[in-house]
Amino acid sequence: MKILLSEEEIPKSWFNITPYLPKPLEPPLDPQTKEPVSPDKLLAIFPEPIVEQEVSEKEWIEVPEDVLRVYSLWRPTPLHRAKNLEEYLQTPAKIFYKNESVSPPGSHKPNTAVAQAYYNKVSGVKRLTTETGAGQWGSSLAFATQFFNLECEVYMVRVSYNQKPFRRILMETWGAKVIPSPSPYTRAGRKFYEENPEHPGSLGIAISEAIEKALTSSDTKYSLGSVLNHVLLHQTVIGLEAKKQMEKAGYYPDYVVGAVGGGSNFAGLAFPFLKDKLTGEKPHLEVIAVEPEACPTLTKGEYRYDYGDTVGLTPLIKMHTLGHEFVPPPIHAGGLRYHGDAPLLCLLYHEGYISASAYKQRAVFEAAITFARTEGIVPAPESAHAIRKAIDIALECKERGEEKVILFNLSGHGYFDLSAYDMYLKGELPDT
Amino acid sequence: MKILLSEEEIPKSWFNITPYLPKPLEPPLDPQTKEPVSPDKLLAIFPEPIVEQEVSEKEWIEVPEDVLRVYSLWRPTPLHRAKNLEEYLQTPAKIFYKNESVSPPGSHKPNTAVAQAYYNKVSGVKRLTTETGAGQWGSSLAFATQFFNLECEVYMVRVSYNQKPFRRILMETWGAKVIPSPSPYTRAGRKFYEENPEHPGSLGIAISEAIEKALTSSDTKYSLGSVLNHVLLHQTVIGLEAKKQMEKAGYYPDYVVGAVGGGSNFAGLAFPFLKDKLTGEKPHLEVIAVEPEACPTLTKGEYRYDYGDTVGLTPLIKMHTLGHEFVPPPIHAGGLRYHGDAPLLCLLYHEGYISASAYKQRAVFEAAITFARTEGIVPAPESAHAIRKAIDIALECKERGEEKVILFNLSGHGYFDLSAYDMYLKGELPDT
Repeated sequence: MKILLSEEEIPKSWFNITPYLPKPLEPPLDPQTKEPVSPDKLLAIFPEPIVEQEVSEKEWIEVPEDVLRVYSLWRPTPLHRAKNLEEYLQTPAKIFYKNESVSPPGSHKPNTAVAQAYYNKVSGVKRLTTETGAGQWGSSLAFATQFFNLECEVYMVRVSYNQKPFRRILMETWGAKVIPSPSPYTRAGRKFYEENPEHPGSLGIAISEAIEKALTSSDTKYSLGSVLNHVLLHQTVIGLEAKKQMEKAGYYPDYVVGAVGGGSNFAGLAFPFLKDKLTGEKPHLEVIAVEPEACPTLTKGEYRYDYGDTVGLTPLIKMHTLGHEFVPPPIHAGGLRYHGDAPLLCLLYHEGYISASAYKQRAVFEAAITFARTEGIVPAPESAHAIRKAIDIALECKERGEEKVILFNLSGHGYFDLSAYDMYLKGELPDT
Repeated sequence: MKILLSEEEIPKSWFNITPYLPKPLEPPLDPQTKEPVSPDKLLAIFPEPIVEQEVSEKEWIEVPEDVLRVYSLWRPTPLHRAKNLEEYLQTPAKIFYKNESVSPPGSHKPNTAVAQAYYNKVSGVKRLTTETGAGQWGSSLAFATQFFNLECEVYMVRVSYNQKPFRRILMETWGAKVIPSPSPYTRAGRKFYEENPEHPGSLGIAISEAIEKALTSSDTKYSLGSVLNHVLLHQTVIGLEAKKQMEKAGYYPDYVVGAVGGGSNFAGLAFPFLKDKLTGEKPHLEVIAVEPEACPTLTKGEYRYDYGDTVGLTPLIKMHTLGHEFVPPPIHAGGLRYHGDAPLLCLLYHEGYISASAYKQRAVFEAAITFARTEGIVPAPESAHAIRKAIDIALECKERGEEKVILFNLSGHGYFDLSAYDMYLKGELPDT
């Protein structure tokens, strides 16, 4: 069962949770001076409208007409009632999921990629750079930039470039230039490349290359796919739509659940509901972030200032962190391997408005298979963390005989992650 | 821009074009006796409700409640107005496409797979067998059978099994047993397998294995993904939805376009519209089947009786055929490599109600890239044949200044066909 909205019901404004925060967000700090970063520094890599959104205190920020038009290629996304899963679990709980897997790149990522491409275009930018690991974010930015005639340059970690060609081809199909990193084209890349032209690379090196390119070309800016306030802002289309859809279904969730890597799909779904908890209207709402045990940022990290990247080039940001040099084991939910989390999310977690759970990957894939065999969609390993938690809550409801309402975010599909499914089905997936 | 229907608007009956045919369909013949095949023979491999549908003269056949429930996991599918593509082409034509790529297996195939799984289940069948090449059909049947607790056994051509693991993993994720063919488990497979356990296999051998398994086990039946009347019948949900959606948009198409392999996605979209041409209500409607030049069944084949399979085991059917021993070059639209076409489609083509075009694959991939870069969706190479034709009609409209309305079927996405895109983008795709 699905609850659909008409195209006219795509939200016309994004929701900014900043005005409702229980205390102000602490600013990013310059790594040299330890003083708050000046807007100038941000303007060197991001265009003005994005920097404005990053620090805005306004509750509602209008979605430009041209962004709505691109959104309408796949939005509004369906909200499903997971009736088959409920029956399989024999739970009295009602399970709903927001299906962000229907976008052409297959995840929630284009919600912000399209907005960022637009703001760069109207600011006179000609080219966006970014980094990508397995290619989830890079493909979303490639998808987005083509609608605004922007060039897109993606520095892709070489080991992924060589071993996972499909998202690379997807980016090229959408017209992007994909460069294996480390490359000979930047100072940051060159020193590794010259040592070893087949250097496997890392996300840290790729970030450095992409930022360097933006800093050294006047017509080029950089784009980031998670963590920052403006990214979370753009993702709130998810939760705003879901709220309307839950209303149409006649329910309000008792639990809102999402997987957390940097925090953008989670915040996108949760923040519009979390407002009701922050205002005291829904004091019993439980908002749950789910992460891998292998990268337990919220459940085991410290709340302190740390670098956003692994090499220490970015501003220091206040967040839950495992330390910027933390290297998680190679789990298959690549999108959840970030050492920190979005500052907005971390503040709300620290203040007790959000709780967190962590799972090992076999339990996550078990839930993914259950979901695929009941609801039909093969979920991304990232999204399957949210499914695992939703199933566990539904099973608790069964024990207690409670008809609670659970809503989770199906942030993406797993059609580019089938090798991990293969390992799981063969019993070869390490249980980290 | 999308035109969406609510879940209540999923068609409650399939449309059978048989009562409107300009002359009766000639029956399939027994290859030994050359007499019409007796229903007994069909009942050995298909369950009774399917055999009834295969020969039904009723215009409307009710969609069972349990099939509707599974359809509702992804249906109704969106109808898109391809505004970006229109603007890119600067055409006065209006281009619409029905988006069947949103199903979990990524194509129109589950429309019939779900119906067939249901009818087998209610007929007491425990297991369905089928064959698959690259895995498009096999994955749809694996998807469908899990909703009815049927076992699913897919004989997969070994060369694809080894070289294209992703759809194999998809089938296994949905609980199917995938067997590389030729296998040691059937008489048909064994003789090839014993000669060479690494025999690359062929679709012909895989069909023989799947049918043999159905013929030799009392609880097992066989399932076919195209060509037959009941398959085309189930696919008419596509056109019935599209007709409602075109009405909501305020247009009736001048052109209805679809790619043809066996004919099921084409017929599924076209037949509900074609009824209006057959009744004389829309005499000027043009219905166009598009095929690869490398496998030009309609444009170059003969209209005569021929075997449905390559090895000559099936009944003889009256169709346009290149000869059952025809082996097309290895083009990348694997779903369009069939030597014949659906008898219903061939009759209507022979009688002049349908026209046909053929394209080489570079022109097809060029259209696919244009579509991906304007409408955002990466199409299946099969579907890109329809896109190529739609673009060419739109360009003719531009020359003549005509505001015609074009509707085509986007039968599937291309996320499992990215290697072919890679070859095209590198200029390495042979122009066959």
